[in-house]
Amino acid sequence: MNAREPRGPGNSTPIRWLDAPSSEAWLTLALAHPQELLVDHAHCERKAAHTALRLMGIYAMEPGLAEVLSPLAREELQHFETILSLLKGRGWRLRHLSAPPYGASLKRCVAPQEPERMLDQFLVAGLIEARSHERLGLLARHCPDEELAGLYRSLLASEARHFGVYRVLASRRFSPTVVNSRLRSLAAVEAQILGQLHGQPRMHS
Amino acid sequence: MNAREPRGPGNSTPIRWLDAPSSEAWLTLALAHPQELLVDHAHCERKAAHTALRLMGIYAMEPGLAEVLSPLAREELQHFETILSLLKGRGWRLRHLSAPPYGASLKRCVAPQEPERMLDQFLVAGLIEARSHERLGLLARHCPDEELAGLYRSLLASEARHFGVYRVLASRRFSPTVVNSRLRSLAAVEAQILGQLHGQPRMHS
Repeated sequence: MNAREPRGPGNSTPIRWLDAPSSEAWLTLALAHPQELLVDHAHCERKAAHTALRLMGIYAMEPGLAEVLSPLAREELQHFETILSLLKGRGWRLRHLSAPPYGASLKRCVAPQEPERMLDQFLVAGLIEARSHERLGLLARHCPDEELAGLYRSLLASEARHFGVYRVLASRRFSPTVVNSRLRSLAAVEAQILGQLHGQPRMHS
Repeated sequence: MNAREPRGPGNSTPIRWLDAPSSEAWLTLALAHPQELLVDHAHCERKAAHTALRLMGIYAMEPGLAEVLSPLAREELQHFETILSLLKGRGWRLRHLSAPPYGASLKRCVAPQEPERMLDQFLVAGLIEARSHERLGLLARHCPDEELAGLYRSLLASEARHFGVYRVLASRRFSPTVVNSRLRSLAAVEAQILGQLHGQPRMHS
């Protein structure tokens, strides 16, 4: 494995595959707006479940795909409900938040033709999980609100696992050279998108 | 409640809200193709989860909506996985099946403008669950394959509950007169669509 393994601010765990760690500026913005960030994170969990279901619809016949994406989607929804209940407990509400450019920009990188399209969709979904993992780790370590830090800590492990699920889905269908090379290209774009901080506090600002 | 309560073939439980029971012809077709029907039912569970997630995306801010649709989607996915595992156990596979006209025809009934659009989407989703409940009941009673009959019996109750979830979502936002009148209209169309048997064995032929 020869991908660079950058470290996040104060991060003691190497973040494999991400091309660059999150900036201090992102962490500062995120920590200054705990409520907005939590609401955005709820939407992220819902969207991640939706992505898994969308892929299950498109690639329903791929052997071994539905078997791993259906439990993944259920887990994302379980997290969504956990966050919803924490929001409720604080008198906070799920509300509409404008999306940062992150998702749409990554979507534009997806190849229009199969089978490259399938590979890209797995890898983009995986990279989003990897970035969520890195950022949840930062929030878990730096968030001064103990309850929120605990929540972020509890969600952390599954995001890493989900990256693994998408990577295995890719690896079972494409050669290691193709997967690793495309993953490195997409990871570079992903880091580039986040290189310009989006002004509003979001999980993927 | 003044909706007609027709009975299915050999059905001892009144099917509230459905405008007409399933025909003997559907049951005969369905029982003659257990494998194809089971695969189609797996797709139905996946699509039902997808519908719930789609509505959670569109109406994310509606109070109390995500709290009920997220567990509903998880339950549909759990059923999907149960069916998948039964298919696997028999050496059967999830495969692509052409969809009957049912879903697309019902979709065309959905009002283009809000708030009627929201009401229609809840009621259409609910009617599909109600029809699934009725048909699973028929399969549970008439399927000679004990394992399949048991599966259908185990899925039955939640479909009825899901109809209730959608009906409550509608009732919390619209007057009983509006909900009941629209439900009756949509139920009449739903029964009319199924009045012409689709030649291929599907849950909603």
